Formats: sequence, structure tokens, C-alpha cells
Amino acid sequence: MRNIEGIKIVDATIRDGGLVNDFFFTDEFVKKVYESNVAAGVDYMEFGYRADKKMFDPSKFGKWKFASDEDVFSIVGDNPTGLKLCVMADVGRCDFKNDIHKKSDSPLSLIRVATYIETIPEAIEMIEFAAKQGYEVTCNLMAISKCTLMQLSRALEMLAQSPVMGVYIVDSYGALYPKEVRKLTKHFYDHLSPYGKLTGIHAHNNQQCAFANTIEAYDLNAKMLDGTYYGMGRGAGNCHLEALLGYFNGKKYHVEPILDLVESEMLALKDQEPTWGYNTSYLITGLANVHPRDAIAATKKHDTNFVEQFKYQSYK
Amino acid sequence: MRNIEGIKIVDATIRDGGLVNDFFFTDEFVKKVYESNVAAGVDYMEFGYRADKKMFDPSKFGKWKFASDEDVFSIVGDNPTGLKLCVMADVGRCDFKNDIHKKSDSPLSLIRVATYIETIPEAIEMIEFAAKQGYEVTCNLMAISKCTLMQLSRALEMLAQSPVMGVYIVDSYGALYPKEVRKLTKHFYDHLSPYGKLTGIHAHNNQQCAFANTIEAYDLNAKMLDGTYYGMGRGAGNCHLEALLGYFNGKKYHVEPILDLVESEMLALKDQEPTWGYNTSYLITGLANVHPRDAIAATKKHDTNFVEQFKYQSYK
Repeated sequence: MRNIEGIKIVDATIRDGGLVNDFFFTDEFVKKVYESNVAAGVDYMEFGYRADKKMFDPSKFGKWKFASDEDVFSIVGDNPTGLKLCVMADVGRCDFKNDIHKKSDSPLSLIRVATYIETIPEAIEMIEFAAKQGYEVTCNLMAISKCTLMQLSRALEMLAQSPVMGVYIVDSYGALYPKEVRKLTKHFYDHLSPYGKLTGIHAHNNQQCAFANTIEAYDLNAKMLDGTYYGMGRGAGNCHLEALLGYFNGKKYHVEPILDLVESEMLALKDQEPTWGYNTSYLITGLANVHPRDAIAATKKHDTNFVEQFKYQSYK
Repeated sequence: MRNIEGIKIVDATIRDGGLVNDFFFTDEFVKKVYESNVAAGVDYMEFGYRADKKMFDPSKFGKWKFASDEDVFSIVGDNPTGLKLCVMADVGRCDFKNDIHKKSDSPLSLIRVATYIETIPEAIEMIEFAAKQGYEVTCNLMAISKCTLMQLSRALEMLAQSPVMGVYIVDSYGALYPKEVRKLTKHFYDHLSPYGKLTGIHAHNNQQCAFANTIEAYDLNAKMLDGTYYGMGRGAGNCHLEALLGYFNGKKYHVEPILDLVESEMLALKDQEPTWGYNTSYLITGLANVHPRDAIAATKKHDTNFVEQFKYQSYK
């Protein structure tokens, strides 16, 4: 049996998977994911982004892009379960002062503040606000493969002084290999653990390292581990939740509900959403350590000229 | 630029991929793979098994199951390239005394002797024979995830005294995680390097760790690294050669020819061979540390009852 003490497994399917289908999940699907997470012993379920409706047209996205408290309530009722709920709030894309209400009025336990390294001060402002509203808060540091260790030290020192519960290594580009993940995890842990803050990992599968990277981080004391059903997420997708729950399967975590939903829902969903999942175009952007947008575009238009894609990413 | 000193990258597509299509590759395809390997700077190309025609009916398999010297010559001529050629010879399935001829009469440089831990003495007999015929020889130790460290120590001590060039960690079941790969690689290296023998890695992708495991082994001095085009191989398949060459891309190794062949040949081949490549059934047998045969059967008959498959593998 693996040591699961203090582990918090986060299902990010509706949020990162929402980037694949513009958040057009049916309530029935979201409810099934919720029930499966409860049965599997998952610790947190992310219900989407809390995006600013003044910045994004609600008629163009499913409601989980905005994931209001009311929408979450409509799925979970008073959530009489051990599963905690969260949303992601992006720096610069969330009107947090108006849209993050008091925790006592919300079904959520956790707000995940997503930021790039350049906007740490703004992220800390959001973190402080959300903490004051009563939530647990994490900082999800995106595009980490572009950050220098010095930039990270500075950011982690600032975050360690904030009311954040944990800080995530977010490998947005799927560029990291296990070796780099170990170095980053140690770097995060060394900065954060003296302040009682957790290290988290959110991996992308461009080079098919998402699961391997997640368990490598776990081995070095990353406690917050993200996965999604069948790996559903932007581009190559994420660490497969069924792989992660299989790894930890035992008394607390149970992989069978996850496997069940993969069969009953995810296989068909994958067939409808051809842009998500490992392919050679995603390998190329991962290798080049760039945003997957070109690979997503190539996948959409069935462009398989991998040599040209590689040349373009390598030399641009 | 990564350190590639002493690295030997082996393309095993025709051999491990042959397990997917009973070795029915066209000569044209095999020739294209050969030319691509030459252009990419791959070190060795495996042309199939040298199986015993008295044990396997040649009318039921493509010729690369038997990979005669003549068949290899017909593809490569006198092979005026830097690419070395090899075949695999299975203990108990190869009439090696009759079918492994003198190296001077053969296009091959290397014989890869595949064995389970129980048949190491027979493997050593084959290794000694092939070495006497003038070949480089490796020992490819299958189902390694079932071996104890003590069994491995004993086998490695015997192999270190043999004329073998290197010994491979073969993760036949795709059961290993990066952590175990590091321990095994260190174990192999510690036993083999004092005798000037190399450590190799041949990974399977059941838990999407094949590439990650391969580069982890490399970091701990495994020098013989197997991959296949688009991961083609039994069940979940292997380490993708395009990921591996991408990782080492530079002066010696060139990923572009591999990417080109993935586009021109492998995408269509994959569509024809639905049993190969990661899926949830393979995840389950990898997790259970068993042979993928049940997952292959499930994949063939489109059985996606993953919960039953998991229960069966976990409790049988």
C-alpha cells in the first residue's frame, strides 16, 4: 500500500476538459463525474473557471466557464459528501471582488488562482481576497517550463508569506521530463514546506509523461495531484485519473468508479472531441516547449505534416 | 545538447511491431524503415525474430518472423551505411545451431537473445554460440517486473561472465514506474559495468511510462535504448522512437526522418491495427503486472468493460 498521508487528489476534468469543448458539458455528465469522484474517494473536484462575464460572452461558452455558486449548487445540493469542490480563477480574467462570494454562501471549499510568473503580485491580491472570504486557496503557476529557478525562488518566497494553502507546478506545455519535475518539486518543497504550504503538480501529456511526472512529484512530497478522466484536457490532455487512482487504489482511493465512467462516458466523448489526446503534433510542441495552440490548430485541420511542424517550432 | 556518448538507439519496429500484424510487412515498408533509420542516425535496426520454422508454420506468418539472412540482404544489399542490423532469437524458439550462421556470411551485426529469468543457462548457451559465430550479442531479459533483485543478481553475475555485449531490462508487461526503472538500471549497471557490459532498456507503454522510463534509464547509464516508430509493438506498444529521437535530436540523431515516416506510413498502419497502442485495458494489465494477452483479446473484441477487467486481473 502506498503512503497516501496528506495526499489531495484533484479531478480537473470539467475545468481543463472544458477547454476542449468550450465547457459545453451537460448537467447530467457533470453530476455523473461528481458521483464518481465521491465513490472513488477523490479529494477535490474542479467545476470549471470562474471567468468574468464582462470579458467572455456567456452565449459562446457552456456555463462551467463561469461556474457560479448557483450552478455548482444545482449539481451537488448541499454536498453531503467528503468531496470538496473548487473552481479556477485566472489572474486578469476573473472579477474576483464581485464574483468570489463568502465561503459561507458557496458550495466551494477551494479557489485555485491560476497565474503566469509575471503576475504573481496580482495573484497574491486574489489569494488574499479569497482567503479572506473564507476559502482554501492554491496558486497554480502556469507555463512553469518557461520559468528560471531564480524567478521561481522569488515567486515562492512571496507566496510562502501569503495565505495560500499550496502552490502548483503547472506544466502547461507538457515540456517537462521526470528529471526536471524532480528538481522543480524539490525546489517548491524546500521553499514551501517550512511555511506549512503544499506543493502540487498539474501535468500535460504532450510527451506522454503526464502520469510519470505526477508520481515522480508525489515521491518528492508533492501532495496535491491533478488528474482528469481519460486525460481529458487541453491539447494532449492531462494525467489520466484512472492511472493515478489505480496507482493509489486501496482503502481510501478506489479506481473502479473511474474506470466505470471512462467506459460509460469518456470513450464516446473522446470520439466527439478529436483535438484532445496525445498525438505527434503535441509531441512536437512539448519538445519545443511552446503553447500547444499550433498543435491544436493542426489537429483540428488534420494537418499531419509533422516535419514542417517540427521545423516551424524549432526554428521560429 | 544531451550527452550521447556510447548511446545505441535500437529501432525494434519490425520485430515488436511484427507481433501486432504477424510480421506481414511489405518489403517496401521495411525498406522505408531502413532508409529512415539510416537518415535519422539510429544505431541498430531489428529485422524481426529468427524463429524456428519447424516450430512455427511459415505459411501463417510474414517472413520477418524468421528474418533469414537472405531476406535481410534483399532489403539492405551490402548495407553501405552506419546502421547496424540485428534480429531477436528467443530461447526455446530458435534453432540457433542451424539458423545462426557465421557473421561473415550475414548482414547482421547483433543477435538479441530473448529469455525469461528461468532460462538463463539456455540463453547463455545461445549467447556463446552467437558470439563464436562472430556477432555482438545482447541478452534481453523479459518480464523483468516479475523478477526479484536476488534472481536478477544471480542472472547478471552469470551474464557478466559471458561474451554478452549488454543486458536489457525488458518491461514486457509495462508494469514499471520511473522509480523502479531507476533501481533496476542501477542494479544492472552495478553488476555489468565492471565487466564492460552495457545496460539496455526496452519499455512498454501500458501505463504511458515507456518514454519516461527509457530516458530515466538513460540518465542512470543505460546505453542501449529501444524505440519503435509511433510506438508500434505488442499491446500498448513501446517507447515512441520519434519521442526518443526528439529528445536526442542534434548532430548525430535527427528526428525529422522519423516524423516523416510516422506521417507517411505509421498513421495509416495504426488505423489498420487497432490492437496496438495505449488504452484502458492495457493500463489495467500493466497495473496488475501481467502479460497483456487478456487486454489484447479485450481490445480485439471491443470489450470495454474495464471494471470487470480490473476485477479479474486484480483478484485472479
